[in-house]
Amino acid sequence: MSPIVTAFEVHDIRFPTSDQLDGSDAMHPDPDYSAAYVVLRTGDGTEGHGFAFTIGRGNDVTAAAIEALRPYVTGRPAPRTAADLAALYRNLTHDSQLRWLGPEKGVAHMAAGAVINAAWDLAATTAGLPVWEFLARMTPEEIVSLVDFRHLTDALTPDEALALLRAAEPGRAERTARLRAEGYPAYTTSPGWLGYDDARLVRLAEQAVADGFGQIKLKVGADLDDDVRRLALARAAVGPSVRIALDANQRWDVPEALHALAALAPYDPHWIEEPTSPDDVLGHAAIRAGQPVRVATGEHGANRVLFKQLLQAGAVDYVQIDAARVAGVNENVAILLLAAKYGVPVCPHAGGVGLCELVQHLAMFDYVAVSGSLDERVIEYVDHLHEHFTDPVVVRDGRYAAPTAPGFSARMRPESIAAHRYPDGPVWQRRKETGRA
Amino acid sequence: MSPIVTAFEVHDIRFPTSDQLDGSDAMHPDPDYSAAYVVLRTGDGTEGHGFAFTIGRGNDVTAAAIEALRPYVTGRPAPRTAADLAALYRNLTHDSQLRWLGPEKGVAHMAAGAVINAAWDLAATTAGLPVWEFLARMTPEEIVSLVDFRHLTDALTPDEALALLRAAEPGRAERTARLRAEGYPAYTTSPGWLGYDDARLVRLAEQAVADGFGQIKLKVGADLDDDVRRLALARAAVGPSVRIALDANQRWDVPEALHALAALAPYDPHWIEEPTSPDDVLGHAAIRAGQPVRVATGEHGANRVLFKQLLQAGAVDYVQIDAARVAGVNENVAILLLAAKYGVPVCPHAGGVGLCELVQHLAMFDYVAVSGSLDERVIEYVDHLHEHFTDPVVVRDGRYAAPTAPGFSARMRPESIAAHRYPDGPVWQRRKETGRA
Repeated sequence: MSPIVTAFEVHDIRFPTSDQLDGSDAMHPDPDYSAAYVVLRTGDGTEGHGFAFTIGRGNDVTAAAIEALRPYVTGRPAPRTAADLAALYRNLTHDSQLRWLGPEKGVAHMAAGAVINAAWDLAATTAGLPVWEFLARMTPEEIVSLVDFRHLTDALTPDEALALLRAAEPGRAERTARLRAEGYPAYTTSPGWLGYDDARLVRLAEQAVADGFGQIKLKVGADLDDDVRRLALARAAVGPSVRIALDANQRWDVPEALHALAALAPYDPHWIEEPTSPDDVLGHAAIRAGQPVRVATGEHGANRVLFKQLLQAGAVDYVQIDAARVAGVNENVAILLLAAKYGVPVCPHAGGVGLCELVQHLAMFDYVAVSGSLDERVIEYVDHLHEHFTDPVVVRDGRYAAPTAPGFSARMRPESIAAHRYPDGPVWQRRKETGRA
Repeated sequence: MSPIVTAFEVHDIRFPTSDQLDGSDAMHPDPDYSAAYVVLRTGDGTEGHGFAFTIGRGNDVTAAAIEALRPYVTGRPAPRTAADLAALYRNLTHDSQLRWLGPEKGVAHMAAGAVINAAWDLAATTAGLPVWEFLARMTPEEIVSLVDFRHLTDALTPDEALALLRAAEPGRAERTARLRAEGYPAYTTSPGWLGYDDARLVRLAEQAVADGFGQIKLKVGADLDDDVRRLALARAAVGPSVRIALDANQRWDVPEALHALAALAPYDPHWIEEPTSPDDVLGHAAIRAGQPVRVATGEHGANRVLFKQLLQAGAVDYVQIDAARVAGVNENVAILLLAAKYGVPVCPHAGGVGLCELVQHLAMFDYVAVSGSLDERVIEYVDHLHEHFTDPVVVRDGRYAAPTAPGFSARMRPESIAAHRYPDGPVWQRRKETGRA
């Protein structure tokens, strides 16, 4: 008998990252990385932690949306199995009144993701396994049962998903061993924030190569002359064999993207990420078709229906899942299966606060049990705020080490939660007193 | 000098409509029509009212999202001109931190729409004009200035929009006179809710024809045999010349939609509305291409980028704007211009609570100053909850009468607000006492 969830705590946690321009990009010049954070507790002392990531203002709204989900969790048995987690996912995303708030998008959907990921943390912890392994030990039938195929069957049926998973089953043990021994390839965005000056960019790019990364990423999109200059400097700093991805953070219209990428292409960028609106499937397809740089998107992809269309339209070379925007593990499993069906590599978005910790599990599960491949696959890595987690990511020689601790790796330290609570935590109280908040 | 906005009141208002199954459809069997309602007040006593429509649970979350927008409005001059309203729209939708919550979708975007519509109510009231006329008296340049063309220019440039509006300018006076004399065509959804039995459906369909409606609408999607039987009964009741639209409320996958529509087509349905996920541009295009019934969608269209793609992909025969889901009048002006560019008629979604009151203004503005046409155009009408508004819609002989009172027609009566506040208003307190809430 599963213990009952007796507590559902919601916290508005914010880090004043805008002070250093960490995370600055063409659309988001001053982010304060934040988490609308939820903790589930059971009668037997097990916990599950989850969160939606935001960049400051509005984190309180997301926390309110999480609060609205309390009745679906408290006083009920803690989820433990694939069936439990599938039922929770359906209840949270298909409530006949709440779904009007999306459907399946925006604040309400991110809130569902936070609670679902907390339930996965709880279930994997109960099983004594890290989430990637908890997933990778499920049968193909259990994995398929996690997915809501509504609105997907024109692209992927349950039978097709089952066939994909069965085909990958024989290699699971070998890939698990390789993953434990070698880790999963990473790339770093730390050099490329738009608010950093040229000297800092070059220094950090050189450092990234010295640290073993085979790929870095630069933010672009505010000013094309600046973008060309910065890319040229970075290319000179890292040499011809290190990949340089670009990220426009939605800044361009389709014609602007085609123009800018023509100017940037001579410096051999690896991909262009979010060249335009994240909702614009046809725009991404036009950009991919109209210039030579590969196209990546997904961190703001609202739900599996958007990813389905990006794949159907041939709009992307790389699918960038985010662990905390869609409805948690369950919906990301659907997206991994869609990407595998279409043969497109998944290169997760991370960074922010805690996103690296979460998404590594999904990429590793993809490798072991879905795509079965590391080719053309890298997980984003940003060296920010890991110290606030009890089981932070370990990145060595440009690779993520496979987590070994049970759970989802994204539990924030109690002292970090207490210090950064908004607006009452000491970090924010101090800023208020000094006139900075 | 414009007066300062001194008050920003937010109310969670809910109507227990699920008692009667009014509004029941295949995805939303038990809606409690609700409004996350905002009132702006200025120092000189002028008011502006706006709201996001929801169907019950989550209305509090939407109210919290409206609350987060308070700093953009209070203590600032009340918007009066096109330029003021354009600035407010940009500030609310492009805040560099808040946009992470969408971008431009879901709860946060609906909240922006509520505040923007309240500002339009305030500005039009100050001008002494109903919103449709306030808009229709603007110059083409002012109307273009209302629109955010970001992510639209591959489909519509500001110059193209200006040319469209200038081409429609000569006929404005004549169309205004015709609108005042004859009104705007309506259709009624009142007969077709899924929760109504066959006898009630037939009786209400006959009544709709007697009331002068040339089009009715039925909900479908829960069970195909029921859908075919109900459509056949309705067809027999209204005869061959009255149009019967169908609405699946997102229930089908693409293959299911093709199958169902093949079975329904013999009864000559006028359109199929929301046959699948509202996000699925490619799915709607496939459904439109794969069977004979015309396709309509848009009430859950998250933003102008979705509408742009529906038009680019040739996915729709009718564009169904909603007054309270996108970012208010400004974004709907963008959608009207896109539809005009592609030559697709706009047939607004209404119903709920207050949606008829709001959206009639946008359709009438479209007729006078944008598309210049009533061909194939109808505004949805549902006979629910109008008694709660101070300037309710007037529908006679199947046509909406043009509003004459200044403002947006969507101010709820103070006694209705007080009675239906959730959870503390007497309607909900009484239900709590009787164990029904």
